[in-house]
Amino acid sequence: MSRKKKFPRESFVSMTELVLPNDTNTLNNLMGGRLMHWMDIVSAISAQKHSNSTVVTASVDNISFKHPIRLGNVVTLKAKVTRAFNSSMEVRIDVEAEDVPNAHKFESNAAYFTFVALDPQGKTRDVPEVEPENDEERALYDGALRRRQLRLILSGRMKPSEAKELKSIFDISES
Amino acid sequence: MSRKKKFPRESFVSMTELVLPNDTNTLNNLMGGRLMHWMDIVSAISAQKHSNSTVVTASVDNISFKHPIRLGNVVTLKAKVTRAFNSSMEVRIDVEAEDVPNAHKFESNAAYFTFVALDPQGKTRDVPEVEPENDEERALYDGALRRRQLRLILSGRMKPSEAKELKSIFDISES
Amino acid sequence: MSRKKKFPRESFVSMTELVLPNDTNTLNNLMGGRLMHWMDIVSAISAQKHSNSTVVTASVDNISFKHPIRLGNVVTLKAKVTRAFNSSMEVRIDVEAEDVPNAHKFESNAAYFTFVALDPQGKTRDVPEVEPENDEERALYDGALRRRQLRLILSGRMKPSEAKELKSIFDISES
Amino acid sequence: MSRKKKFPRESFVSMTELVLPNDTNTLNNLMGGRLMHWMDIVSAISAQKHSNSTVVTASVDNISFKHPIRLGNVVTLKAKVTRAFNSSMEVRIDVEAEDVPNAHKFESNAAYFTFVALDPQGKTRDVPEVEPENDEERALYDGALRRRQLRLILSGRMKPSEAKELKSIFDISES
Amino acid sequence: MSRKKKFPRESFVSMTELVLPNDTNTLNNLMGGRLMHWMDIVSAISAQKHSNSTVVTASVDNISFKHPIRLGNVVTLKAKVTRAFNSSMEVRIDVEAEDVPNAHKFESNAAYFTFVALDPQGKTRDVPEVEPENDEERALYDGALRRRQLRLILSGRMKPSEAKELKSIFDISES
Amino acid sequence: MSRKKKFPRESFVSMTELVLPNDTNTLNNLMGGRLMHWMDIVSAISAQKHSNSTVVTASVDNISFKHPIRLGNVVTLKAKVTRAFNSSMEVRIDVEAEDVPNAHKFESNAAYFTFVALDPQGKTRDVPEVEPENDEERALYDGALRRRQLRLILSGRMKPSEAKELKSIFDISES
Repeated sequence: MSRKKKFPRESFVSMTELVLPNDTNTLNNLMGGRLMHWMDIVSAISAQKHSNSTVVTASVDNISFKHPIRLGNVVTLKAKVTRAFNSSMEVRIDVEAEDVPNAHKFESNAAYFTFVALDPQGKTRDVPEVEPENDEERALYDGALRRRQLRLILSGRMKPSEAKELKSIFDISES
Repeated sequence: MSRKKKFPRESFVSMTELVLPNDTNTLNNLMGGRLMHWMDIVSAISAQKHSNSTVVTASVDNISFKHPIRLGNVVTLKAKVTRAFNSSMEVRIDVEAEDVPNAHKFESNAAYFTFVALDPQGKTRDVPEVEPENDEERALYDGALRRRQLRLILSGRMKPSEAKELKSIFDISES
Repeated sequence: MSRKKKFPRESFVSMTELVLPNDTNTLNNLMGGRLMHWMDIVSAISAQKHSNSTVVTASVDNISFKHPIRLGNVVTLKAKVTRAFNSSMEVRIDVEAEDVPNAHKFESNAAYFTFVALDPQGKTRDVPEVEPENDEERALYDGALRRRQLRLILSGRMKPSEAKELKSIFDISES
Repeated sequence: MSRKKKFPRESFVSMTELVLPNDTNTLNNLMGGRLMHWMDIVSAISAQKHSNSTVVTASVDNISFKHPIRLGNVVTLKAKVTRAFNSSMEVRIDVEAEDVPNAHKFESNAAYFTFVALDPQGKTRDVPEVEPENDEERALYDGALRRRQLRLILSGRMKPSEAKELKSIFDISES
Repeated sequence: MSRKKKFPRESFVSMTELVLPNDTNTLNNLMGGRLMHWMDIVSAISAQKHSNSTVVTASVDNISFKHPIRLGNVVTLKAKVTRAFNSSMEVRIDVEAEDVPNAHKFESNAAYFTFVALDPQGKTRDVPEVEPENDEERALYDGALRRRQLRLILSGRMKPSEAKELKSIFDISES
Repeated sequence: MSRKKKFPRESFVSMTELVLPNDTNTLNNLMGGRLMHWMDIVSAISAQKHSNSTVVTASVDNISFKHPIRLGNVVTLKAKVTRAFNSSMEVRIDVEAEDVPNAHKFESNAAYFTFVALDPQGKTRDVPEVEPENDEERALYDGALRRRQLRLILSGRMKPSEAKELKSIFDISES
């Protein structure tokens, strides 16, 4: 029997935050840790929507912080599930910041968080599969496999030589 | 020279919050004050977007809290500017709550906040007019005049007898 | 059998807050939402004292914010129950702010919140009636009926033509 | 020229707090540190009122925590300045807790905090003297001298043999 | 049968905090109440480690605040149990602050908190005795008796004439 | 002229946190985002100590969350700088959680954060080099180069074929 499928847009969540004094360092820039806290909340809600379950954060992929976000800026975080693997889900989060009085909007960064769905007893449970609907969603769906292999290697649960899909980005045939 | 106009969708803001323990009372229901705090933030951002200015809350219309929102629920607040009057803007906020694991979503309530735009010296400044684009937005735009009269009467700055538009809802011709 | 009565002073609560950085916007003024959060807490405690029950916020009347309150100011909120209707209570909150180092005190605003009393199972329960003791309390007690009619009309639960007491303030006989 | 005098009631401040989940330990009792945080805020406001200055906490006297305060209780803190010494002020804080639904009120504890008044450049400045108006205030005023000697001894700035007033409570003549 | 013994180092806890805007007053100095809140947390964890129990704060000894700690400073709190008396434990906390960019580190202050160990039903339970291992720990162990007598006197549970150990510091033989 | 060198122990920071209700999800487990917020603070302090500068978070490496941390647990985070590259520093954070009443301690996870040092004008500035003192520190120092290459590849600033050191862990010679 095949599992239920859901579209990425069914798990879409948008969250807006105002950068307050306690969120900033002494240079009045948003601290990275506060931003990751917001990323975790928005992506957990997205994973909850996809799975209709309680979820726990399983991992966070490499994040780089490009542009400083300032005190008083408005931060918009958008999340959706890109792909599911049994009881786990990968969520992509896109962060945008805006200096609203000066109408200056800029992309801040993107991140991938993974979550595991739990039943009320705290045991893992399977979640619906993801059915991408457009090219962007299909690219995210395909890339999820490579990102998963990298996660497994980095956490010591897969040997690099087994990571077939990942090898392609490391350009191994030419090495 | 006519003032610049902006569409309600240009000031649209969506904000998502997770109800945490400190947001709730001893019955595990979201406290009204926390919800109003969120309403104020989302509508202030909306008014900032419309005016590209710093804004301050000028007033809040009557709000009634219909359905209890529970610990762990996801609250979505959507705001947009309905109409502007010189330096002030009315923002409508729609609140929806969701028990995500049980896929139970319900409308919580709606509210109107007004804001005044300030220049960097803290003086009021004029803001763009609002150009409604559809029937719902036109109804909000028209209703804004009556709500404004009620606000002025309730704060003692207008005599009830001067509130022409408001009289119609109070059905005065028939009284 | 008549219901128990309580005096407004039995539900009197005074609360003092210091405006901290995270309570303010980029102009260093107290955000309206934070003030409403404090109003909700002080008036909920007042309604608890009147009813000796857990209470939930049922509605908030129109509030206008007149004078900006600044970072470092001391805010004093005073609340007492003005009148009860079965299981619901109206609470008036008076807010005063003070720049203490400069000994400058100013009235900020007043507000009316209503609460519903709940028993431990979460069902509404009747509360004591209010017995005003002086002219100010009697004026608040009488006005509570008009404010209630306005609330019912604004939330769509009463037709304007039925709001007998309210009509007087709208000066309808002269219209 | 004699310094200005002020009455204790001129520095009286009352503050009310609701015990929320994050204020409690795993037994649902208010943590001592949170209570001391509130004590510091209410007594700092009291010292500000007496001195019309910015103030900093200089010391805290021995506090003992007698009765546990529970999640959902209402805590009332009352502070007033008991005596001033040049630029420093002693403030007494009385704490009362109440289980409002059960109408059970109990004294929790009392504490003495001292503050130093600062001018805008951060230098200490003299403050008005205290003029007690009744027996209770006179007892607090007199006791302030003994408590000050104990503070100076405990912080190593006075030899026990110099603490004339303190000796009387330690019953030294009879030892 | 003799009670189990534990070394002070077994209850050692170190905690580091960054001073954020909301922790400071209008002069950008850390508020005393926030520092006491941190002291309470670090010493409660230390007492938990010594007793392997839930603990509640029983008392706080006189604290004096010597040097202002500034916004952006790093505060390090170190705690360990000095001595146990049946179900109660005395914890010493040493606080150090650092202006890291300027590599300026300074001792802030020291404090003594006492805690009582509770079993899961909330009743007091005996805790292991403390076995000091070096001169500094022995001095703290010995001093704990005098500090305890002072606490009992100040809270009205011991007559000054009974406080044998305490008398020595009050230099009574010479008075 | 060679740059100044510092030992990893000079940037060592230990931070202890108690898991409070607002830090947890509805299963009473610590939320991943809160843990990352703490990781960011402890590692930022470590990078500040190494560089004696203000720092900003530049990136976070893949983190996996292995064991759930529970409400009431004590979390200890230990950070030190592993290696510096011009103005950037890699910090390793080790997280340990403890159920203190049950004396059950367990490793939670490890993470790598990178920071950039800024001068008071907000420009990047060079930082001291790291001098490892033992085998563990040397292994971290050596591994830092591979982790840096992976970061550069993942953020699109290096081609996989250029990542000489990284190739070795991907076992490419055998592919």
